[in-house]
Amino acid sequence: MRYAVIMAGGSGTRLWPLSRQGRPKQLLPLFDGRSLLQLAWQRAVASVPPDRVLVCTGAAYAHDVIDQLPGLDPANLLGEPEGRDSLNAAAWSTAVLARRDPDAVVAVLTADQVISPEDVFVDRLVQGFALAEADPAALVTFGVEPSDPSTAYGYLERGPAVPGFPGAAEVLAFTEKPDAATAARWVDSGRYWWNSGMFVWRAQTMLDQLRTLHPATFESIEKLAGEPDRLGAIYPGLPRNSIDYAIMEPVSRGEGTAHVVAVAMPIQWRDVGSLDALHAALPHDADGNATSGEVLAEDASGSLLINQSGGPLAVIGVDGLAVVRTDDAVLVVPLDRSQAVKPMAVRAER
Amino acid sequence: MRYAVIMAGGSGTRLWPLSRQGRPKQLLPLFDGRSLLQLAWQRAVASVPPDRVLVCTGAAYAHDVIDQLPGLDPANLLGEPEGRDSLNAAAWSTAVLARRDPDAVVAVLTADQVISPEDVFVDRLVQGFALAEADPAALVTFGVEPSDPSTAYGYLERGPAVPGFPGAAEVLAFTEKPDAATAARWVDSGRYWWNSGMFVWRAQTMLDQLRTLHPATFESIEKLAGEPDRLGAIYPGLPRNSIDYAIMEPVSRGEGTAHVVAVAMPIQWRDVGSLDALHAALPHDADGNATSGEVLAEDASGSLLINQSGGPLAVIGVDGLAVVRTDDAVLVVPLDRSQAVKPMAVRAER
Repeated sequence: MRYAVIMAGGSGTRLWPLSRQGRPKQLLPLFDGRSLLQLAWQRAVASVPPDRVLVCTGAAYAHDVIDQLPGLDPANLLGEPEGRDSLNAAAWSTAVLARRDPDAVVAVLTADQVISPEDVFVDRLVQGFALAEADPAALVTFGVEPSDPSTAYGYLERGPAVPGFPGAAEVLAFTEKPDAATAARWVDSGRYWWNSGMFVWRAQTMLDQLRTLHPATFESIEKLAGEPDRLGAIYPGLPRNSIDYAIMEPVSRGEGTAHVVAVAMPIQWRDVGSLDALHAALPHDADGNATSGEVLAEDASGSLLINQSGGPLAVIGVDGLAVVRTDDAVLVVPLDRSQAVKPMAVRAER
Repeated sequence: MRYAVIMAGGSGTRLWPLSRQGRPKQLLPLFDGRSLLQLAWQRAVASVPPDRVLVCTGAAYAHDVIDQLPGLDPANLLGEPEGRDSLNAAAWSTAVLARRDPDAVVAVLTADQVISPEDVFVDRLVQGFALAEADPAALVTFGVEPSDPSTAYGYLERGPAVPGFPGAAEVLAFTEKPDAATAARWVDSGRYWWNSGMFVWRAQTMLDQLRTLHPATFESIEKLAGEPDRLGAIYPGLPRNSIDYAIMEPVSRGEGTAHVVAVAMPIQWRDVGSLDALHAALPHDADGNATSGEVLAEDASGSLLINQSGGPLAVIGVDGLAVVRTDDAVLVVPLDRSQAVKPMAVRAER
């Protein structure tokens, strides 16, 4: 049977002061009052029944997650005692589902992006399920056609097409974020996709790769799935590792017992991990401003103006500026300096 | 005997959101925790005993004024039911003092500027008193050497020196704010001073000019001084007029029975009627930032960063920007667009 796991960890300091410790990015109601988590849930339940959708998040956010997702069975919430990167979250979720259903086919979905159109996403996700069911040795991922040579994403190098699955291809290489020159070359070549960070696999196939490539982690994950009471003792001791680095890259190099296949996702895919990305993802007025809350703007353009506190946020004569006001902080930063927000957030929260 | 009246009316919408209805500019503790009113009080009591210093302000601010000035005799607070411009405030105060002391010599002082050095100010104020005592027909004003051809101030044209009072001169003309070309010509000529808006006069001399030039206003003011209970009935009906336009300009043209004399004030005189002027008047750090409250600045320069609410104001990568945060509003505006604050304040307070 088909299952989906929404990965909703992460604190999102790059969206400070919107996101905070205890108020992570994926829970912020920034999109017509809905959060990234709610958008991801909506996409998941369009392809899998709600009682087979899991959410893996920080234990500290469990209460808020249940509040935001009335359709989520609380037994399907996996709360990490602390974040241990994507390999452990994905492997734990997969192992839990393998115990419930040895034939489980699992989609691992992210909650970091705004995706449109949703029906195309769902269509391709369903194709990913079909591919994993047809080919038990496949780890299926999804490739997004690059709109620009971004250095913020990993890339997939496409190989031969997969017969019977239009738009699917073998993956020859799974690579980390490239430098700008490499990214430009890859995008020009037409042979690379952005790595969406979303996957479909048979639970057993994924766990087999883990056992082959990281036997110690496999042992711990199996123990965890069998003895949920020991979560607090075992989880924090797991070595940090990313799913790409630990599994997808070596398997694409032929080091596992499976192979990696990508399904094309012809979607608009907007990461909102930074204020400039959030600005790009939100609707704009005629002057290119994305505004939220009580905002008075005079001669402002290309700006992100968010007011989450009482009384007005007034902005005059600015271009390309982010002004974010919460009840307990204000941030002013040019959108093209968004990468400087994270160190500022660390300084502010200290 | 000598008296001083501190004129502390005005709402200061150009400093919004620092100043508000009910929280006017002159009461804001912006200068090492002291307000413009407190600075003006300190200057006044350096030349006149505290029990002979009056404050004329909006009735709505009476409580705050008494709070800020423990040395003020509450009987010396004149509360305007509503602002009717400088002529009425000055004439009312002068008439009140003329009833107390027919020989009163009155200094009318403003609370709109940061002035330094204070001892020079006090020295010249004392000279102004001496001049008004020596020449009963003199309306004494104070001329500030222009540091630039500002179009924000009125100007005085100097005439012949006054014998026996070094630095004092007849005033040939009293003019409103000039255009930029005129201001440049005047400053180049070396014959013009900025009009400080501060005066010393014998009460009777000033009231005589009022009777000659504005007999109806004189009647109302006399009635008011005699029947303080009728304040609410009389004051709001007074026609708005400025002391410069109603008295100083016509008297300098020979239309009254007195003449206008100016005493040079070799002081640093900073109006803080706008955010850029406030920035200039406050102390700066090495990057030219004037900051107040909990401010985290990264790569910020030449900016005014004021945080009067809880939690941090974080600013990254800005130059020449004003960011002002109060409990109930935030304003972001380039300092060179400070003149746009007033219409924004009107919009915000609507």
